[in-house]
Amino acid sequence: MTTIFDAPEDFASAALAGFCAIHGRHVRLVKGGVVRSTEVPKGKVSVVVGGGSGHYPAFAGYVGPGLADAAVAGDVFASPSTAAVARVCRHADQGGGILLGFGNYAGDVLNFGVAAEQLRAEGIDVRVLPVTDDIASSPADAVAKRRGIAGTVIVFKIAGAAAEAGLPIDEVERIARHANSRTGSFGVAFKGCTLPGAAAPLFTVPNGKMALGLGIHGESGIREEDITSASDLAKRLVRSLVAERPAGAKRVAALLNGLGSTKYEELFVLWHAIALQLKSEGLEVIEPEAGEFVTSLDMQGCSLSFLWLDDELEAYWRAPSDAPVLRRGAVIAANPTTDVLNEPEGQPVYLAASAASKASGVCIANMMQRLAAMLKDAEKDLGRIDAIAGDGDHGQGMSRGSAAAAAAASAAAAAGAGAASVLAAAGDAWADRAGGTSGAIWGLLLQSWSSSFKDDESVTTEAVVLGARLALNSVIRLGGASIGDKTLVDALMPFVETLEDRVASGKSLAEAWRDAAHAATLAADATSSLAPKLGRARPLAERSIGHPDPGAVSLAMCARTTAVLLREVS
Amino acid sequence: MTTIFDAPEDFASAALAGFCAIHGRHVRLVKGGVVRSTEVPKGKVSVVVGGGSGHYPAFAGYVGPGLADAAVAGDVFASPSTAAVARVCRHADQGGGILLGFGNYAGDVLNFGVAAEQLRAEGIDVRVLPVTDDIASSPADAVAKRRGIAGTVIVFKIAGAAAEAGLPIDEVERIARHANSRTGSFGVAFKGCTLPGAAAPLFTVPNGKMALGLGIHGESGIREEDITSASDLAKRLVRSLVAERPAGAKRVAALLNGLGSTKYEELFVLWHAIALQLKSEGLEVIEPEAGEFVTSLDMQGCSLSFLWLDDELEAYWRAPSDAPVLRRGAVIAANPTTDVLNEPEGQPVYLAASAASKASGVCIANMMQRLAAMLKDAEKDLGRIDAIAGDGDHGQGMSRGSAAAAAAASAAAAAGAGAASVLAAAGDAWADRAGGTSGAIWGLLLQSWSSSFKDDESVTTEAVVLGARLALNSVIRLGGASIGDKTLVDALMPFVETLEDRVASGKSLAEAWRDAAHAATLAADATSSLAPKLGRARPLAERSIGHPDPGAVSLAMCARTTAVLLREVS
Repeated sequence: MTTIFDAPEDFASAALAGFCAIHGRHVRLVKGGVVRSTEVPKGKVSVVVGGGSGHYPAFAGYVGPGLADAAVAGDVFASPSTAAVARVCRHADQGGGILLGFGNYAGDVLNFGVAAEQLRAEGIDVRVLPVTDDIASSPADAVAKRRGIAGTVIVFKIAGAAAEAGLPIDEVERIARHANSRTGSFGVAFKGCTLPGAAAPLFTVPNGKMALGLGIHGESGIREEDITSASDLAKRLVRSLVAERPAGAKRVAALLNGLGSTKYEELFVLWHAIALQLKSEGLEVIEPEAGEFVTSLDMQGCSLSFLWLDDELEAYWRAPSDAPVLRRGAVIAANPTTDVLNEPEGQPVYLAASAASKASGVCIANMMQRLAAMLKDAEKDLGRIDAIAGDGDHGQGMSRGSAAAAAAASAAAAAGAGAASVLAAAGDAWADRAGGTSGAIWGLLLQSWSSSFKDDESVTTEAVVLGARLALNSVIRLGGASIGDKTLVDALMPFVETLEDRVASGKSLAEAWRDAAHAATLAADATSSLAPKLGRARPLAERSIGHPDPGAVSLAMCARTTAVLLREVS
Repeated sequence: MTTIFDAPEDFASAALAGFCAIHGRHVRLVKGGVVRSTEVPKGKVSVVVGGGSGHYPAFAGYVGPGLADAAVAGDVFASPSTAAVARVCRHADQGGGILLGFGNYAGDVLNFGVAAEQLRAEGIDVRVLPVTDDIASSPADAVAKRRGIAGTVIVFKIAGAAAEAGLPIDEVERIARHANSRTGSFGVAFKGCTLPGAAAPLFTVPNGKMALGLGIHGESGIREEDITSASDLAKRLVRSLVAERPAGAKRVAALLNGLGSTKYEELFVLWHAIALQLKSEGLEVIEPEAGEFVTSLDMQGCSLSFLWLDDELEAYWRAPSDAPVLRRGAVIAANPTTDVLNEPEGQPVYLAASAASKASGVCIANMMQRLAAMLKDAEKDLGRIDAIAGDGDHGQGMSRGSAAAAAAASAAAAAGAGAASVLAAAGDAWADRAGGTSGAIWGLLLQSWSSSFKDDESVTTEAVVLGARLALNSVIRLGGASIGDKTLVDALMPFVETLEDRVASGKSLAEAWRDAAHAATLAADATSSLAPKLGRARPLAERSIGHPDPGAVSLAMCARTTAVLLREVS
């Protein structure tokens, strides 16, 4: 849905004016388009590109040194007028001739073609290049009928680099046509686009389906299939393009294009899979791009374009370019690093441990296993409750963190580590794997607790009690919470105080722990922090940190979870 | 809706891996984040930034010379673990100390804070900077409780520039804190975001409403209001930020941020309005940015951030930076042009015309007025029919084009132009204002027709007949259509042939025109191209151009329209 505009009919012109205000270093606004705002050498071939609006960064985003000299912009999805094309070309003309690049659509072919005739009559040497990259729009034996989609940008980049290199118009035209003949694109749409001011999209794709062979003006695809995984989608896109690989081609320039509402993260996930697929096809990819290059308003979907490189094309593909989008080359010169990052992945080495401490370590590892099993069982419930107040990931985080802690503790115990190392390993693993606020708190808690243990003696009652106090202190100091903030401190503090009190009065560790866990449970119940709606917990969690924050809410939930864990793991 | 992924739980890590594969010139992947892939001077202060994932380009997109040295990435909307922060910092450390920048959220404050303690214990001088730019999240008297949204990037840019300049850690920290204290952001959301794999968004905004004061982790806004125009939205955003203007501040660095599903064109439309608003507030804006900087998955909305500049901050804001996103400075050196673009806007000058030709000109202008009135009446019907097969803009284009043609013809006639100039002016105006395929065709048709007229004699029957033939020839040659392609050629060709035949056989122009128009109507009816569903017209229109194309469909509709016009305008 296009939401931000004043008058829908002024959308394209207001967007172009705003674009020029932001990118004044590269472009200036003229009637019907933009031209470079930087000096261009006299006699250089001008590359002028264009088409309808609604495709940003196509085409105004490609104006700058090493790329286009000017861009003509029609209304949304409408070809610019003949007069607009001619007018923008006259501004861009440096006496070296003009290459006019556009996608192969009836309206553009006509308007750019008629403008070219007019300009030739005025003595300007104009060549027209309709780009025909969309392999879904017509079979391979009728390439001239194919329409232009995101591959247009690749062809313009090559033409722009050839013109920047100072080649004459005949050469620029030859190289650009050569690039067009070796460029192919294939795309999918998940959701149609809506014109500014319109209430309904130009086309729809049924839920759970994707339309293959999309167009960029609201044309739906050539067939519908079920939405598939990123890996499978990567395979389909790559194979469709590889089916037209020219004989002997082994290197490709690749451009993965988002159509408007497909996120950059999604494109990167897809690229990750495409890169694997390219490797398995034995292809080398050169300076790939992933991002928005030729959009279709708020359409959801993507396309993949390949330029099958030879040495000549590769040089122009790699050449510097300095437009608002598709920048190549360094602003600040910097050499690639040569050092190898040292990320130790082997077995950790533990301090030599006494037999007694090793036995305590095994006991700790078993406790962590039980704790992980309990949190695995509670994962869904915790997630459900967290979703009411936060983002619903608390159960997953606690389950993942405790599982990692249990695995790390067991591995350490099996490797002969002592009690301190086993518990420290559990804490590190929890914090590292769980992520989020509660992961950090639980990792910190176990880490601090372990600091009272030793690897050369068994765990004493005194060490357990001291460790509990150290854990509480760390959590308060670094977590910033006080009693009553509805965080796990609400449960942990009475636990520690009761534990200290009972041990001091001569009770056994098991008895003291039971009393302490009971105190923690009572306190946690009192916070109501696990009440079904978290009704009272949330405002307090917010207050403790100043604003609503899922992390703070998760902390509030910890009070009751902590109490349960302290009671059960004994 | 997040659509492209393999396993939802691997979304963030796969996206980061794909990002690094695309941007290998800037970054390399390490466990838990990215670090620069280029050499960094020993002793330089390292700027390490980070937070949860789902905010691309925050934060990995900001790693490169002049900006950050490394970025830590947690899971989607989850703080990175303490261990991940510490690990990435160790990779980035160059011995000059580390500034750790992140948004002010409980989880991040905790994990970055604990990591900083660990690193300090290892001898690394680490400073933490939680960014607090969101003015909606807490009142001005509790700035420290504000959360960090898109203003984080501004603060990181300043810190990165100060570090790149070789300043010591105390100075980098001072300047970064100073920038944070002068940075404010305010945002609106139109639609919530959906976690990868989730079926429903984290929050929803009612249709037609916008939520003011949005968060970037699925936190909804602080209040809901009706969606408003771009100009009004610009006013609200600017005024909210100006309310916190520091005394004496007159220059701002501005960053207009899209949250994921808000299009760049929309941001440019909004910027156009913001720039006007800033001017009316008497503020000077320095190197503004508009685009995606801190997103929230596929959330729809935007935020505006200001950094209130002083001389020191302005220098760092303008300094070159070379990260995947927020690049500053030229790749290819180029001077701003100094020439003034000459866009003549004054009265056109017409050839001296005879009284007889002037009279013909007035007659032509009157015909154009009638034609425009007819197309105005038909606008809705033409649009409705075009919407079935194309994008629904044909009626609007024909109406707009003919109105412009009528106005231009009348102006020319009033200025004393002869017949040829009046009709040529009509053709030029139609092509320029209508846009699209049919605009170009109609402009061409009238222009070509005018070439048989003269400005120094009245329009003869022979000139009308010859003009019709010239018009037909141009349309066939440049439009590329043949008879039977269901374009206006289907109506125009029998019209021209009948006109020629009847005049040759001695009929008056009026009689010949009537017969010719009748022939055109019969031919157009035969094409069925204006049949309610355009059932047979579309495939042929597609065939004529090789692929489905609204422009071609509009052409097909022209046959009947042309026939009607030729009959009525006589």
